[in-house]
Amino acid sequence: MRVKLVVAYDGTAYCGWQIQPNGITVQQVLNETLSQFFHQEIAVVGASRTDSGVHALCNVCAFDVDTRMPADKISYALNQFLPDDISVVASEEVDKDFHPRFQKGKKTYEYKILNSRFPNPVERLYSLFYHRSLDVERMKKAASYLVGEHDFTSFSSIHAQTNTFVRRVYCCDVEKDEGDMITIHIEGNGFLYNMVRIIAGTLIEVGNGRIEPEAVKDILEAKDRSKAGPTAPPEGLMLMDIQYDTSNNKNVIDSKETT
Amino acid sequence: MRVKLVVAYDGTAYCGWQIQPNGITVQQVLNETLSQFFHQEIAVVGASRTDSGVHALCNVCAFDVDTRMPADKISYALNQFLPDDISVVASEEVDKDFHPRFQKGKKTYEYKILNSRFPNPVERLYSLFYHRSLDVERMKKAASYLVGEHDFTSFSSIHAQTNTFVRRVYCCDVEKDEGDMITIHIEGNGFLYNMVRIIAGTLIEVGNGRIEPEAVKDILEAKDRSKAGPTAPPEGLMLMDIQYDTSNNKNVIDSKETT
Repeated sequence: MRVKLVVAYDGTAYCGWQIQPNGITVQQVLNETLSQFFHQEIAVVGASRTDSGVHALCNVCAFDVDTRMPADKISYALNQFLPDDISVVASEEVDKDFHPRFQKGKKTYEYKILNSRFPNPVERLYSLFYHRSLDVERMKKAASYLVGEHDFTSFSSIHAQTNTFVRRVYCCDVEKDEGDMITIHIEGNGFLYNMVRIIAGTLIEVGNGRIEPEAVKDILEAKDRSKAGPTAPPEGLMLMDIQYDTSNNKNVIDSKETT
Repeated sequence: MRVKLVVAYDGTAYCGWQIQPNGITVQQVLNETLSQFFHQEIAVVGASRTDSGVHALCNVCAFDVDTRMPADKISYALNQFLPDDISVVASEEVDKDFHPRFQKGKKTYEYKILNSRFPNPVERLYSLFYHRSLDVERMKKAASYLVGEHDFTSFSSIHAQTNTFVRRVYCCDVEKDEGDMITIHIEGNGFLYNMVRIIAGTLIEVGNGRIEPEAVKDILEAKDRSKAGPTAPPEGLMLMDIQYDTSNNKNVIDSKETT
Protein backbone atom coordinates (compact mmCIF):
# COMPACT_ATOMS: atom_id res chain seq x y z
CA MET A 1 0.00 0.00 0.00
CA ARG A 2 0.97 3.66 -0.30
CA VAL A 3 1.27 5.52 2.98
CA LYS A 4 1.22 9.29 3.49
CA LEU A 5 3.14 10.66 6.49
CA VAL A 6 2.91 14.13 8.00
CA VAL A 7 6.31 14.92 9.47
CA ALA A 8 7.46 17.64 11.89
CA TYR A 9 11.14 18.39 12.37
CA ASP A 10 13.62 20.79 13.87
CA GLY A 11 15.90 21.44 10.89
CA THR A 12 18.79 22.78 12.99
CA ALA A 13 20.88 19.59 12.84
CA TYR A 14 19.99 18.56 9.27
CA CYS A 15 21.32 19.40 5.82
CA GLY A 16 17.75 19.91 4.68
CA TRP A 17 15.19 17.38 3.50
CA GLN A 18 16.70 15.78 0.46
CA ILE A 19 19.32 13.04 0.56
CA GLN A 20 22.77 14.32 -0.34
CA PRO A 21 26.30 12.96 -0.06
CA ASN A 22 27.71 15.39 2.54
CA GLY A 23 25.52 15.42 5.61
CA ILE A 24 22.52 13.85 7.31
CA THR A 25 19.11 14.81 5.94
CA VAL A 26 15.56 14.27 7.17
CA GLN A 27 14.72 12.09 4.17
CA GLN A 28 17.71 9.85 4.91
CA VAL A 29 16.70 9.38 8.55
CA LEU A 30 13.13 8.52 7.52
CA ASN A 31 14.30 6.07 4.83
CA GLU A 32 16.66 4.30 7.23
CA THR A 33 14.13 4.17 10.08
CA LEU A 34 11.31 2.90 7.84
CA SER A 35 13.56 0.34 6.13
CA GLN A 36 14.71 -1.06 9.48
CA PHE A 37 11.21 -1.05 10.91
CA PHE A 38 9.55 -2.82 7.96
CA HIS A 39 12.57 -5.03 7.05
CA GLN A 40 12.41 -3.86 3.42
CA GLU A 41 14.00 -1.12 1.35
CA ILE A 42 11.84 1.99 1.67
CA ALA A 43 12.31 5.39 0.04
CA VAL A 44 10.03 8.30 0.86
CA VAL A 45 9.07 11.05 -1.61
CA GLY A 46 8.63 14.44 0.02
CA ALA A 47 6.35 17.35 -0.79
CA SER A 48 8.75 20.14 0.17
CA ARG A 49 12.49 19.73 -0.11
CA THR A 50 13.26 22.19 2.65
CA ASP A 51 16.76 23.66 2.81
CA SER A 52 19.43 23.07 5.43
CA GLY A 53 18.31 24.56 8.76
CA VAL A 54 14.67 25.10 7.74
CA HIS A 55 12.00 23.66 10.07
CA ALA A 56 8.65 21.99 9.41
CA LEU A 57 5.52 21.42 11.44
CA CYS A 58 3.75 19.53 8.66
CA ASN A 59 5.85 18.36 5.73
CA VAL A 60 4.26 15.51 3.80
CA CYS A 61 5.87 12.43 2.29
CA ALA A 62 4.71 9.13 0.90
CA PHE A 63 6.15 5.65 0.46
CA ASP A 64 5.10 2.20 -0.69
CA VAL A 65 5.28 -0.70 1.72
CA ASP A 66 4.18 -4.30 1.94
CA THR A 67 2.68 -4.65 5.43
CA ARG A 68 -0.47 -5.68 7.25
CA MET A 69 0.02 -2.97 9.89
CA PRO A 70 -2.87 -0.46 9.80
CA ALA A 71 -1.55 2.73 8.19
CA ASP A 72 -2.85 5.00 10.95
CA LYS A 73 -0.80 3.10 13.56
CA ILE A 74 2.50 3.60 11.73
CA SER A 75 3.00 7.10 13.16
CA TYR A 76 2.90 5.83 16.75
CA ALA A 77 5.31 2.98 16.06
CA LEU A 78 7.73 5.09 14.04
CA ASN A 79 8.10 7.77 16.73
CA GLN A 80 9.62 5.15 19.02
CA PHE A 81 12.58 4.87 16.64
CA LEU A 82 12.99 8.42 15.33
CA PRO A 83 15.33 10.94 16.98
CA ASP A 84 13.77 13.68 19.15
CA ASP A 85 14.07 16.29 16.41
CA ILE A 86 11.86 14.38 13.93
CA SER A 87 8.29 13.36 14.70
CA VAL A 88 5.59 11.73 12.55
CA VAL A 89 2.34 13.45 13.50
CA ALA A 90 -0.02 11.50 11.21
CA SER A 91 -0.04 8.49 8.90
CA GLU A 92 -2.76 7.23 6.55
CA GLU A 93 -3.22 5.00 3.53
CA VAL A 94 -3.63 6.91 0.26
CA ASP A 95 -4.45 6.04 -3.36
CA LYS A 96 -1.67 4.45 -5.37
CA ASP A 97 -1.52 7.57 -7.58
CA PHE A 98 -1.03 10.01 -4.66
CA HIS A 99 2.20 11.95 -5.15
CA PRO A 100 3.12 14.52 -2.45
CA ARG A 101 4.76 16.89 -4.93
CA PHE A 102 2.61 16.62 -8.04
CA GLN A 103 -0.70 16.71 -6.19
CA LYS A 104 -2.59 20.00 -6.32
CA GLY A 105 -2.61 21.80 -3.00
CA LYS A 106 -1.83 24.79 -0.81
CA LYS A 107 1.32 25.37 1.22
CA THR A 108 1.72 27.65 4.22
CA TYR A 109 5.03 29.01 5.44
CA GLU A 110 5.95 31.37 8.26
CA TYR A 111 9.13 33.38 8.60
CA LYS A 112 9.92 34.74 12.08
CA ILE A 113 12.07 37.80 12.82
CA LEU A 114 12.90 38.77 16.40
CA ASN A 115 13.10 42.55 16.09
CA SER A 116 14.56 43.61 19.42
CA ARG A 117 17.67 45.24 20.81
CA PHE A 118 19.05 42.00 22.22
CA PRO A 119 18.90 38.41 20.98
CA ASN A 120 16.73 35.93 22.86
CA PRO A 121 18.59 32.62 23.35
CA VAL A 122 15.42 30.52 23.51
CA GLU A 123 14.21 31.92 20.17
CA ARG A 124 17.55 31.75 18.38
CA LEU A 125 17.01 28.41 16.64
CA TYR A 126 13.59 29.34 15.24
CA SER A 127 13.84 33.00 14.23
CA LEU A 128 16.14 35.55 12.66
CA PHE A 129 17.46 38.08 15.16
CA TYR A 130 17.37 41.58 13.63
CA HIS A 131 18.18 44.51 15.91
CA ARG A 132 17.60 47.49 13.58
CA SER A 133 14.10 48.95 13.78
CA LEU A 134 11.59 47.51 11.27
CA ASP A 135 8.41 49.35 10.26
CA VAL A 136 5.75 46.62 10.19
CA GLU A 137 3.19 48.83 8.39
CA ARG A 138 5.59 49.29 5.48
CA MET A 139 6.22 45.53 5.42
CA LYS A 140 2.47 44.82 5.40
CA LYS A 141 1.98 47.13 2.43
CA ALA A 142 4.86 45.62 0.49
CA ALA A 143 3.56 42.11 1.23
CA SER A 144 0.15 42.99 -0.22
CA TYR A 145 1.70 43.43 -3.70
CA LEU A 146 2.86 39.80 -3.66
CA VAL A 147 -0.68 38.42 -3.36
CA GLY A 148 -2.13 37.01 -6.57
CA GLU A 149 -0.72 35.18 -9.57
CA HIS A 150 2.68 36.55 -10.57
CA ASP A 151 5.91 35.60 -12.26
CA PHE A 152 8.20 35.31 -9.22
CA THR A 153 11.51 35.12 -11.12
CA SER A 154 12.83 38.05 -9.04
CA PHE A 155 12.06 36.08 -5.88
CA SER A 156 13.68 32.83 -6.97
CA SER A 157 17.21 31.56 -6.57
CA ILE A 158 19.12 31.53 -9.85
CA HIS A 159 19.64 27.85 -9.09
CA ALA A 160 15.92 27.10 -9.40
CA GLN A 161 15.05 24.37 -11.90
CA THR A 162 11.48 24.90 -13.00
CA ASN A 163 9.27 25.00 -16.06
CA THR A 164 7.51 28.17 -15.00
CA PHE A 165 8.15 30.91 -12.45
CA VAL A 166 4.44 31.71 -12.18
CA ARG A 167 2.96 31.02 -8.76
CA ARG A 168 -0.20 32.10 -6.96
CA VAL A 169 0.16 33.63 -3.50
CA TYR A 170 -3.17 33.44 -1.64
CA CYS A 171 -2.17 35.66 1.25
CA CYS A 172 0.91 37.32 2.70
CA ASP A 173 0.51 38.93 6.12
CA VAL A 174 2.98 40.54 8.51
CA GLU A 175 2.24 40.77 12.25
CA LYS A 176 4.28 41.78 15.30
CA ASP A 177 3.44 40.37 18.74
CA GLU A 178 4.09 41.77 22.21
CA GLY A 179 7.37 39.87 22.42
CA ASP A 180 8.88 41.79 19.46
CA MET A 181 8.45 38.79 17.17
CA ILE A 182 7.49 39.66 13.59
CA THR A 183 5.81 36.81 11.69
CA ILE A 184 5.49 36.77 7.91
CA HIS A 185 2.66 34.36 7.08
CA ILE A 186 2.39 33.30 3.44
CA GLU A 187 0.14 30.82 1.65
CA GLY A 188 0.43 29.80 -1.99
CA ASN A 189 -0.08 27.02 -4.51
CA GLY A 190 3.68 26.42 -4.60
CA PHE A 191 6.94 28.20 -3.96
CA LEU A 192 10.12 28.51 -6.01
CA TYR A 193 13.57 27.64 -4.68
CA ASN A 194 14.35 30.10 -1.82
CA MET A 195 11.20 32.11 -2.63
CA VAL A 196 9.95 32.59 0.95
CA ARG A 197 13.43 33.48 2.20
CA ILE A 198 13.93 36.03 -0.59
CA ILE A 199 10.48 37.50 0.17
CA ALA A 200 11.49 37.71 3.87
CA GLY A 201 14.82 39.32 2.97
CA THR A 202 13.03 41.84 0.74
CA LEU A 203 10.38 42.68 3.35
CA ILE A 204 13.17 43.31 5.87
CA GLU A 205 14.72 45.80 3.43
CA VAL A 206 11.30 47.47 3.13
CA GLY A 207 10.94 47.52 6.91
CA ASN A 208 14.32 49.14 7.46
CA GLY A 209 13.69 51.75 4.76
CA ARG A 210 16.11 50.65 2.04
CA ILE A 211 13.31 49.58 -0.34
CA GLU A 212 9.96 51.41 -0.75
CA PRO A 213 6.84 49.23 -0.33
CA GLU A 214 5.61 50.20 -3.80
CA ALA A 215 8.91 49.09 -5.34
CA VAL A 216 7.83 45.47 -4.83
CA LYS A 217 5.60 45.88 -7.92
CA ASP A 218 8.64 46.93 -9.98
CA ILE A 219 10.74 44.10 -8.55
CA LEU A 220 8.10 41.57 -9.67
CA GLU A 221 7.92 43.11 -13.15
CA ALA A 222 11.71 43.18 -13.56
CA LYS A 223 11.93 39.35 -13.40
CA ASP A 224 15.47 39.85 -12.15
CA ARG A 225 16.75 38.24 -8.93
CA SER A 226 19.22 41.08 -8.37
CA LYS A 227 16.38 43.60 -7.87
CA ALA A 228 14.98 41.86 -4.77
CA GLY A 229 16.49 41.80 -1.28
CA PRO A 230 18.90 39.19 0.08
CA THR A 231 17.94 35.60 0.93
CA ALA A 232 17.06 35.63 4.64
CA PRO A 233 18.78 32.89 6.70
CA PRO A 234 17.08 29.50 7.09
CA GLU A 235 16.47 29.36 10.86
CA GLY A 236 13.52 31.79 10.65
CA LEU A 237 11.61 29.64 8.16
CA MET A 238 8.98 27.05 9.10
CA LEU A 239 6.81 25.00 6.75
CA MET A 240 3.50 25.22 8.61
CA ASP A 241 1.04 23.24 6.53
CA ILE A 242 0.32 21.49 3.25
CA GLN A 243 -3.33 21.02 2.28
CA TYR A 244 -4.18 18.89 -0.73
CA ASP A 245 -7.30 19.29 -2.81
CA THR A 246 -9.59 16.30 -2.61
CA SER A 247 -9.92 16.48 -6.41
CA ASN A 248 -7.18 14.73 -8.32
CA ASN A 249 -5.86 17.60 -10.46
CA LYS A 250 -2.11 17.44 -10.54
CA ASN A 251 0.95 19.35 -11.62
CA VAL A 252 -0.16 22.65 -10.12
CA ILE A 253 2.56 22.47 -7.53
CA ASP A 254 5.56 22.45 -9.83
CA SER A 255 7.66 19.33 -9.55
CA LYS A 256 10.97 21.15 -9.26
CA GLU A 257 10.13 23.67 -6.57
CA THR A 258 11.91 23.77 -3.24
CA THR A 259 12.17 26.44 -0.62
CA MET B 1 30.95 50.16 40.86
CA ARG B 2 28.27 47.49 41.24
CA VAL B 3 26.56 46.43 38.02
CA LYS B 4 23.25 44.61 37.69
CA LEU B 5 22.80 42.38 34.62
CA VAL B 6 19.58 40.90 33.29
CA VAL B 7 20.49 37.63 31.61
CA ALA B 8 18.52 35.37 29.25
CA TYR B 9 19.67 31.83 28.52
CA ASP B 10 18.74 28.55 26.96
CA GLY B 11 19.53 26.13 29.77
CA THR B 12 19.66 23.04 27.54
CA ALA B 13 23.46 22.85 27.40
CA TYR B 14 24.18 23.97 30.97
CA CYS B 15 24.36 22.27 34.35
CA GLY B 16 22.24 25.05 35.75
CA TRP B 17 23.21 28.49 37.01
CA GLN B 18 25.58 27.86 39.87
CA ILE B 19 29.24 26.98 39.46
CA GLN B 20 29.94 23.33 40.16
CA PRO B 21 32.86 20.98 39.55
CA ASN B 22 31.30 18.63 36.99
CA GLY B 23 29.92 20.65 34.08
CA ILE B 24 29.64 24.09 32.53
CA THR B 25 27.22 26.49 34.19
CA VAL B 26 25.81 29.88 33.21
CA GLN B 27 27.51 31.58 36.16
CA GLN B 28 30.88 30.14 35.12
CA VAL B 29 30.52 31.41 31.53
CA LEU B 30 29.55 34.87 32.79
CA ASN B 31 32.46 34.99 35.27
CA GLU B 32 34.98 33.93 32.63
CA THR B 33 33.63 36.28 29.97
CA LEU B 34 33.48 39.28 32.35
CA SER B 35 36.96 38.55 33.78
CA GLN B 36 38.48 38.39 30.31
CA PHE B 37 36.63 41.46 29.13
CA PHE B 38 37.55 43.67 32.10
CA HIS B 39 41.02 42.13 32.70
CA GLN B 40 40.20 41.54 36.38
CA GLU B 41 38.79 38.71 38.44
CA ILE B 42 34.99 39.04 38.42
CA ALA B 43 32.40 36.85 40.16
CA VAL B 44 28.69 37.40 39.64
CA VAL B 45 26.03 36.74 42.27
CA GLY B 46 22.75 35.48 40.83
CA ALA B 47 19.15 35.95 41.94
CA SER B 48 17.87 32.51 40.92
CA ARG B 49 20.12 29.46 40.94
CA THR B 50 18.15 27.68 38.22
CA ASP B 51 18.63 23.92 37.86
CA SER B 52 20.27 22.02 35.04
CA GLY B 53 18.20 22.39 31.87
CA VAL B 54 15.98 25.22 33.16
CA HIS B 55 15.72 28.35 30.97
CA ALA B 56 15.53 32.04 31.81
CA LEU B 57 14.31 35.12 30.00
CA CYS B 58 15.27 37.48 32.81
CA ASN B 59 17.54 36.13 35.50
CA VAL B 60 19.36 38.85 37.44
CA CYS B 61 22.93 38.96 38.69
CA ALA B 62 25.32 41.56 40.01
CA PHE B 63 29.08 42.06 40.19
CA ASP B 64 31.61 44.65 41.26
CA VAL B 65 34.03 46.04 38.71
CA ASP B 66 36.58 48.82 38.41
CA THR B 67 35.87 50.41 35.04
CA ARG B 68 35.07 53.73 33.39
CA MET B 69 32.78 52.05 30.86
CA PRO B 70 29.17 53.29 31.27
CA ALA B 71 27.20 50.46 32.92
CA ASP B 72 24.39 50.57 30.35
CA LYS B 73 26.86 49.86 27.53
CA ILE B 74 28.21 46.68 29.15
CA SER B 75 25.32 44.55 27.85
CA TYR B 76 26.10 45.43 24.22
CA ALA B 77 29.80 44.72 24.61
CA LEU B 78 29.35 41.51 26.54
CA ASN B 79 27.01 39.96 23.95
CA GLN B 80 29.85 40.06 21.44
CA PHE B 81 31.76 37.55 23.58
CA LEU B 82 29.00 35.36 25.00
CA PRO B 83 27.85 32.13 23.31
CA ASP B 84 24.54 32.20 21.38
CA ASP B 85 22.64 30.52 24.20
CA ILE B 86 23.38 33.28 26.74
CA SER B 87 22.43 36.91 26.19
CA VAL B 88 22.64 39.97 28.45
CA VAL B 89 19.46 41.95 27.82
CA ALA B 90 20.14 44.88 30.18
CA SER B 91 22.90 46.32 32.35
CA GLU B 92 22.82 49.19 34.82
CA GLU B 93 24.74 50.60 37.78
CA VAL B 94 23.13 49.87 41.16
CA ASP B 95 23.75 50.87 44.77
CA LYS B 96 26.65 49.18 46.52
CA ASP B 97 24.18 47.39 48.83
CA PHE B 98 22.11 45.87 46.01
CA HIS B 99 22.07 42.07 46.34
CA PRO B 100 20.11 40.09 43.70
CA ARG B 101 19.05 37.38 46.15
CA PHE B 102 18.43 39.25 49.41
CA GLN B 103 16.57 42.16 47.80
CA LYS B 104 12.76 42.12 48.21
CA GLY B 105 10.94 41.39 44.99
CA LYS B 106 8.63 39.28 42.86
CA LYS B 107 9.56 36.36 40.63
CA THR B 108 7.57 34.98 37.73
CA TYR B 109 7.97 31.47 36.31
CA GLU B 110 6.18 29.61 33.54
CA TYR B 111 6.00 25.87 33.07
CA LYS B 112 4.98 24.63 29.61
CA ILE B 113 3.36 21.28 28.83
CA LEU B 114 2.67 20.22 25.25
CA ASN B 115 -0.47 18.13 25.71
CA SER B 116 -0.91 16.48 22.32
CA ARG B 117 -0.88 13.04 20.77
CA PHE B 118 2.50 13.55 19.12
CA PRO B 119 5.62 15.44 20.23
CA ASN B 120 6.53 18.65 18.40
CA PRO B 121 10.28 18.71 17.65
CA VAL B 122 10.50 22.52 17.63
CA GLU B 123 8.94 22.73 21.11
CA ARG B 124 10.89 19.83 22.63
CA LEU B 125 13.65 21.92 24.25
CA TYR B 126 11.23 24.32 25.96
CA SER B 127 8.27 22.23 27.10
CA LEU B 128 7.34 18.89 28.60
CA PHE B 129 5.63 16.57 26.11
CA TYR B 130 2.67 14.84 27.78
CA HIS B 131 0.37 12.76 25.58
CA ARG B 132 -2.31 11.67 28.07
CA SER B 133 -5.34 13.95 28.20
CA LEU B 134 -5.16 16.74 30.80
CA ASP B 135 -8.26 18.52 32.14
CA VAL B 136 -7.24 22.19 32.30
CA GLU B 137 -10.29 23.22 34.35
CA ARG B 138 -9.27 20.79 37.10
CA MET B 139 -5.71 22.12 36.97
CA LYS B 140 -6.96 25.73 37.24
CA LYS B 141 -9.01 24.85 40.32
CA ALA B 142 -6.09 23.05 41.98
CA ALA B 143 -3.79 25.98 41.19
CA SER B 144 -6.14 28.41 42.92
CA TYR B 145 -5.50 26.71 46.29
CA LEU B 146 -1.79 27.55 46.01
CA VAL B 147 -2.41 31.31 45.90
CA GLY B 148 -1.67 33.13 49.15
CA GLU B 149 0.85 32.72 51.96
CA HIS B 150 1.43 29.05 52.77
CA ASP B 151 4.00 26.67 54.16
CA PHE B 152 5.18 24.98 50.97
CA THR B 153 7.13 22.13 52.61
CA SER B 154 5.12 19.61 50.57
CA PHE B 155 6.21 21.39 47.38
CA SER B 156 9.89 21.60 48.23
CA SER B 157 12.72 19.20 47.50
CA ILE B 158 13.95 17.43 50.61
CA HIS B 159 17.33 18.89 49.65
CA ALA B 160 16.14 22.46 50.21
CA GLN B 161 18.24 24.50 52.63
CA THR B 162 16.10 27.27 54.02
CA ASN B 163 15.11 29.00 57.26
CA THR B 164 11.41 28.95 56.45
CA PHE B 165 9.20 27.10 54.00
CA VAL B 166 6.62 29.90 54.04
CA ARG B 167 6.23 31.69 50.70
CA ARG B 168 3.57 33.94 49.19
CA VAL B 169 2.20 33.00 45.77
CA TYR B 170 0.55 36.05 44.16
CA CYS B 171 -1.08 34.16 41.30
CA CYS B 172 -1.07 30.73 39.71
CA ASP B 173 -2.92 30.42 36.39
CA VAL B 174 -3.23 27.57 33.92
CA GLU B 175 -4.08 28.24 30.25
CA LYS B 176 -4.15 26.11 27.10
CA ASP B 177 -3.61 27.68 23.68
CA GLU B 178 -4.76 26.55 20.23
CA GLY B 179 -1.51 24.70 19.70
CA ASP B 180 -2.17 22.30 22.63
CA MET B 181 0.38 24.09 24.82
CA ILE B 182 -0.61 24.34 28.48
CA THR B 183 1.16 27.14 30.38
CA ILE B 184 1.31 27.27 34.18
CA HIS B 185 2.04 30.90 35.09
CA ILE B 186 3.08 31.52 38.69
CA GLU B 187 4.22 34.64 40.54
CA GLY B 188 5.52 34.77 44.08
CA ASN B 189 7.83 36.48 46.54
CA GLY B 190 10.26 33.54 46.31
CA PHE B 191 10.30 29.85 45.51
CA LEU B 192 11.77 26.88 47.33
CA TYR B 193 14.14 24.38 45.73
CA ASN B 194 12.20 22.58 42.92
CA MET B 195 8.96 24.25 44.06
CA VAL B 196 7.65 25.24 40.61
CA ARG B 197 8.54 21.86 39.13
CA ILE B 198 6.78 20.01 41.99
CA ILE B 199 3.74 22.28 41.54
CA ALA B 200 3.80 21.46 37.79
CA GLY B 201 4.13 17.74 38.51
CA THR B 202 1.23 17.91 40.98
CA LEU B 203 -1.02 19.89 38.61
CA ILE B 204 -0.35 17.27 35.92
CA GLU B 205 -1.55 14.57 38.34
CA VAL B 206 -4.66 16.68 38.96
CA GLY B 207 -5.14 17.12 35.20
CA ASN B 208 -4.92 13.40 34.49
CA GLY B 209 -7.29 12.52 37.34
CA ARG B 210 -4.93 10.87 39.83
CA ILE B 211 -5.25 13.73 42.36
CA GLU B 212 -8.45 15.68 43.08
CA PRO B 213 -8.18 19.48 42.80
CA GLU B 214 -9.38 19.92 46.40
CA ALA B 215 -6.64 17.58 47.64
CA VAL B 216 -4.10 20.35 47.07
CA LYS B 217 -5.35 21.95 50.31
CA ASP B 218 -4.58 18.71 52.18
CA ILE B 219 -1.20 18.39 50.49
CA LEU B 220 -0.26 21.89 51.68
CA GLU B 221 -1.41 21.13 55.22
CA ALA B 222 0.46 17.81 55.36
CA LYS B 223 3.85 19.57 55.02
CA ASP B 224 5.11 16.31 53.54
CA ARG B 225 6.89 16.14 50.19
CA SER B 226 5.64 12.61 49.56
CA LYS B 227 2.01 13.81 49.39
CA ALA B 228 2.59 16.02 46.33
CA GLY B 229 3.14 14.88 42.73
CA PRO B 230 6.51 14.18 41.10
CA THR B 231 9.05 16.83 40.17
CA ALA B 232 8.31 17.74 36.53
CA PRO B 233 11.38 17.71 34.23
CA PRO B 234 13.44 20.89 33.83
CA GLU B 235 12.98 21.65 30.12
CA GLY B 236 9.43 22.97 30.62
CA LEU B 237 10.49 25.59 33.17
CA MET B 238 11.35 29.20 32.31
CA LEU B 239 12.22 32.01 34.72
CA MET B 240 10.24 34.83 33.11
CA ASP B 241 10.86 37.87 35.26
CA ILE B 242 12.26 39.25 38.51
CA GLN B 243 10.90 42.58 39.72
CA TYR B 244 12.56 44.29 42.69
CA ASP B 245 10.78 46.67 45.00
CA THR B 246 12.20 50.17 44.83
CA SER B 247 12.19 50.24 48.62
CA ASN B 248 15.23 48.66 50.23
CA ASN B 249 13.55 46.02 52.42
CA LYS B 250 15.56 42.86 52.25
CA ASN B 251 15.46 39.21 53.17
CA VAL B 252 11.99 38.59 51.81
CA ILE B 253 13.35 36.43 49.03
CA ASP B 254 15.01 33.73 51.08
CA SER B 255 18.72 33.47 50.57
CA LYS B 256 18.78 29.72 50.15
CA GLU B 257 16.00 29.28 47.64
CA THR B 258 16.55 27.84 44.20
CA THR B 259 14.17 26.31 41.70
